[in-house]
Amino acid sequence: MQLGLIGLGKMGGNMRDRITAAGHEVVGFDTNPEVSDVKDLPELVARLDAPRAVWVMVPAGKITDSVMTELGGLLSAGDLIVDGGNSKYTDDLRHAEELKDKGIAFVDCGVSGGVWGKDNGYGLMCGGSEDDVQRVLPIFDALRPDGPRDEGWVHAGDVGAGHYVKMVHNGIEYGLMQAYAEGFELLEAKEIVKDVHGSFKAWTRGTVVRSWLLDLMVKALEEDKDLEQISGFVNDSGEGRWTVQEAIDYSVPMPVISASLFARFASRQEDSPAMQAVAALRGQFGGHAVTKKGDKGVVTDH
Amino acid sequence: MQLGLIGLGKMGGNMRDRITAAGHEVVGFDTNPEVSDVKDLPELVARLDAPRAVWVMVPAGKITDSVMTELGGLLSAGDLIVDGGNSKYTDDLRHAEELKDKGIAFVDCGVSGGVWGKDNGYGLMCGGSEDDVQRVLPIFDALRPDGPRDEGWVHAGDVGAGHYVKMVHNGIEYGLMQAYAEGFELLEAKEIVKDVHGSFKAWTRGTVVRSWLLDLMVKALEEDKDLEQISGFVNDSGEGRWTVQEAIDYSVPMPVISASLFARFASRQEDSPAMQAVAALRGQFGGHAVTKKGDKGVVTDH
Amino acid sequence: MQLGLIGLGKMGGNMRDRITAAGHEVVGFDTNPEVSDVKDLPELVARLDAPRAVWVMVPAGKITDSVMTELGGLLSAGDLIVDGGNSKYTDDLRHAEELKDKGIAFVDCGVSGGVWGKDNGYGLMCGGSEDDVQRVLPIFDALRPDGPRDEGWVHAGDVGAGHYVKMVHNGIEYGLMQAYAEGFELLEAKEIVKDVHGSFKAWTRGTVVRSWLLDLMVKALEEDKDLEQISGFVNDSGEGRWTVQEAIDYSVPMPVISASLFARFASRQEDSPAMQAVAALRGQFGGHAVTKKGDKGVVTDH
Amino acid sequence: MQLGLIGLGKMGGNMRDRITAAGHEVVGFDTNPEVSDVKDLPELVARLDAPRAVWVMVPAGKITDSVMTELGGLLSAGDLIVDGGNSKYTDDLRHAEELKDKGIAFVDCGVSGGVWGKDNGYGLMCGGSEDDVQRVLPIFDALRPDGPRDEGWVHAGDVGAGHYVKMVHNGIEYGLMQAYAEGFELLEAKEIVKDVHGSFKAWTRGTVVRSWLLDLMVKALEEDKDLEQISGFVNDSGEGRWTVQEAIDYSVPMPVISASLFARFASRQEDSPAMQAVAALRGQFGGHAVTKKGDKGVVTDH
Repeated sequence: MQLGLIGLGKMGGNMRDRITAAGHEVVGFDTNPEVSDVKDLPELVARLDAPRAVWVMVPAGKITDSVMTELGGLLSAGDLIVDGGNSKYTDDLRHAEELKDKGIAFVDCGVSGGVWGKDNGYGLMCGGSEDDVQRVLPIFDALRPDGPRDEGWVHAGDVGAGHYVKMVHNGIEYGLMQAYAEGFELLEAKEIVKDVHGSFKAWTRGTVVRSWLLDLMVKALEEDKDLEQISGFVNDSGEGRWTVQEAIDYSVPMPVISASLFARFASRQEDSPAMQAVAALRGQFGGHAVTKKGDKGVVTDH
Repeated sequence: MQLGLIGLGKMGGNMRDRITAAGHEVVGFDTNPEVSDVKDLPELVARLDAPRAVWVMVPAGKITDSVMTELGGLLSAGDLIVDGGNSKYTDDLRHAEELKDKGIAFVDCGVSGGVWGKDNGYGLMCGGSEDDVQRVLPIFDALRPDGPRDEGWVHAGDVGAGHYVKMVHNGIEYGLMQAYAEGFELLEAKEIVKDVHGSFKAWTRGTVVRSWLLDLMVKALEEDKDLEQISGFVNDSGEGRWTVQEAIDYSVPMPVISASLFARFASRQEDSPAMQAVAALRGQFGGHAVTKKGDKGVVTDH
Repeated sequence: MQLGLIGLGKMGGNMRDRITAAGHEVVGFDTNPEVSDVKDLPELVARLDAPRAVWVMVPAGKITDSVMTELGGLLSAGDLIVDGGNSKYTDDLRHAEELKDKGIAFVDCGVSGGVWGKDNGYGLMCGGSEDDVQRVLPIFDALRPDGPRDEGWVHAGDVGAGHYVKMVHNGIEYGLMQAYAEGFELLEAKEIVKDVHGSFKAWTRGTVVRSWLLDLMVKALEEDKDLEQISGFVNDSGEGRWTVQEAIDYSVPMPVISASLFARFASRQEDSPAMQAVAALRGQFGGHAVTKKGDKGVVTDH
Repeated sequence: MQLGLIGLGKMGGNMRDRITAAGHEVVGFDTNPEVSDVKDLPELVARLDAPRAVWVMVPAGKITDSVMTELGGLLSAGDLIVDGGNSKYTDDLRHAEELKDKGIAFVDCGVSGGVWGKDNGYGLMCGGSEDDVQRVLPIFDALRPDGPRDEGWVHAGDVGAGHYVKMVHNGIEYGLMQAYAEGFELLEAKEIVKDVHGSFKAWTRGTVVRSWLLDLMVKALEEDKDLEQISGFVNDSGEGRWTVQEAIDYSVPMPVISASLFARFASRQEDSPAMQAVAALRGQFGGHAVTKKGDKGVVTDH
């Protein structure tokens, strides 16, 4: 089938390759003219045969909002938009509502797999009506991994459900990464353990903790034993935050995923105001030495 | 080679099958005469040719201690014992010391894989001297999964290092399970998500969170959608506790693994004394209604 | 001065007493006619001399919203409303905006102290313009504890700042309560500690942990040693949730307050779907016994 | 009564003053000759009339151990030792056992109050036999705050119980401090809150969160608004660690106190190996930019 694809960056570009390799026609647009097939969205829309299908793969939030608005003005009743970015599911509900007034269908699709998806296929989580999702099924089949469809793709519910499941997927991802990371730190700290890299590698077959993330951890340790070249500064992309905020709205205890998120926040702080407060309190009641800004703290023997 | 194997339960029995299938001779002992090849440990030792190799696969703690003591009295200088159970690494240090006086070698080996190990092979983590570990290598090769040796087996360091790595493996396992579990609970709570089982299944290929535990989660949901037959009462086997206690000794922050452990503790409490205290405090300062023991609490709208 | 007071429940009723005791005139309205001075809001407004000051002390959310809307239609330009309930600060911003169009001033005021405030005075945290806050100062002075004004009252910033500071106050409160509660549970568990109540009481003077909450804990233990009559079912009133959600929006690590909140969520679950998932996973990989719904779990020796 | 006092540092020196002010005779020893009454322990023992009472106030662990050993050789049957330091309760059990063989009585006493204890009195938590504790009661009465004895002193149980209660006291203290600190950080982050110091000060009377630690927080903010001079490097003194390790041994969920402890560990790390691992994983799967050691991380908009 024919697909308009907006956003040809790290993810979108690879996805184009995978979709065209499956025999579909892709008309791509990107603000970078070197990778774009058309000069702007009006040209993109003009190049597509009605009823059109357009996949949006741009950063969530304001950029996705503005693309949705512009597309809403360019597309016609009967056309369909897939938001494949990392939008918050509440944005989906809003976008679907706005487009519905114009007769434009909307499907949200969470996409997992990172830079490896081009070769391995992408895990896909969709939301929308049965009819709308069916219209895009050939593209989903092109993008998802080989094997049974239901092992790499799900129609999780109505609009928003796809991004919701992807959001939770990312929240879980935070927790998994942090679990391996804590284990790594302890193994590195323990003198009697002489081969941390080898230990992680030995876990890749047969054990309970084997996983794709573990394979990547082994790969990272192969490239940089003890990770000496890498700073512990970790960004987050929003979905971990939304996951915890949703958990709070639904009274779901979420100690592990929240702890993973907070560890990322802390990793980005040059100094922690909270810990300054704790240091100040200790100084007040105990006459404990307080380390001044700029000085190096000394670990006292406990 | 010839191996004495003590403990032929769920794990040991399967391991015997896998070792004999690889062409080795196993003389097994178990307190259950139906599965035992010999009537007691003296007979086991008598049946083995010196220098003997004996694999101990019994519950950690007191039982392992008593087997070690008895074996220490039965074996001869030049023999070797492998502790393949879930012993604490400090027990290994003690056992190795005691046996060393008698000229008996000691290797510790953490074994992962559960009931699936019989077919998939077991992930193995060893500690001991180079010579001692080499002596048992044929058995390790029989037990570990097919594929490169270092993807299912590691010689992690001197005595204790094997069980230490296994201990951390289990700590990580707690964190991984809890991360999936928290995501499961949120997906179950969210009305717009119509297919939780399908969502987990869709994650099994292509996504960042794919893993063996995820495959098992899908299997569990296939057997019991929404897990309605299963109580949320979760035991722990000691290694998670030791992992966190070690982390504390080494000043390693371990928010995720500790939270997973505490969630298990809480899952086993009929009532939480801590939460009784919080309820009592709320009753004191706010005149908030306190639920009496035996009454059903009412969630007030927040 | 003269004050209209809407909401004469546990908090509002006590506040009326304290305000009138300070020599002010209160015209109170409540849906309960037994405590109400007037039959409805129109009568309340009619009974007050312009420019009017009306204190709203009703449950946050929909009820506060509807009172604000009704008052907005009844009051006149130059009048002033104080929201003394537990509103979310974003509600304040909305209410202030709506009332501003009608020339009605708005002040938000977080009130702490519970049922003890009638005698001890209430801790007050205000938000609004300097002029608006000054207009209500006599009422604030009547409500706050004796002593220097700044030890029981703060003008924290513009509209919303008062409820924001109160929200964080409550988040901290969750953390404080949980800290005492965890300590209580451990002391109760330890055989060598023979006097838990006495230990808490001994902390009330001289120690680092002395506080008003500690005094209340001692009182609770005096009434019910070991808290045997109290169920560990703990509600939450919204502010703890908002505190953590705000922390997430501001990338502030909040492990302690979030853990306190999650402990409350967990305390209200008959069974935890997350822990059901963990139990199911253990059953899958290890053949660990899974407790069926309705059966009593057995703690296995670790 | 007459008391030997070993250790005249920040705590011991103040305690000597308070004890002598109450009319008792103190013979003090310290390795610092400027504050010491005697030149060594033999002289100290010689100066005391039998049956002697000696209070040991030196750093826990090896130093306390060696003092106990030396005193055990110098004192006579019928004498009594109080360990007032921060010893682990298991050390108490060992010390008491060793001294018992020589007929020397042992009492453990946790002491809280920091540098403020000299004027306010110290909170005291004792363990030992009824007779032994009674012998030292005059000293306890001198040290504890004015007011009813049971509001600043407890005989919590047999040997070890005093230090155990003090250990839990310190664990709670960690949680309390962290709760205030997290609230502080959020208030500092929120633009609409214009007066963080004023907000904390307003909480000191009437509110639910009022406490001695809150008073100290206000004092710290008075000395250094926004705590700009203080580094967030926080040591810990052992008791927080023991508290969490004990909780684990007793299957007591302790999310808040453990989180407080881990936050201290993290505050002392120049770089976190765990977060390096998370960063490495993100780099592997997502092509996310990884910050190299020594470079400054850039927070990407989520």
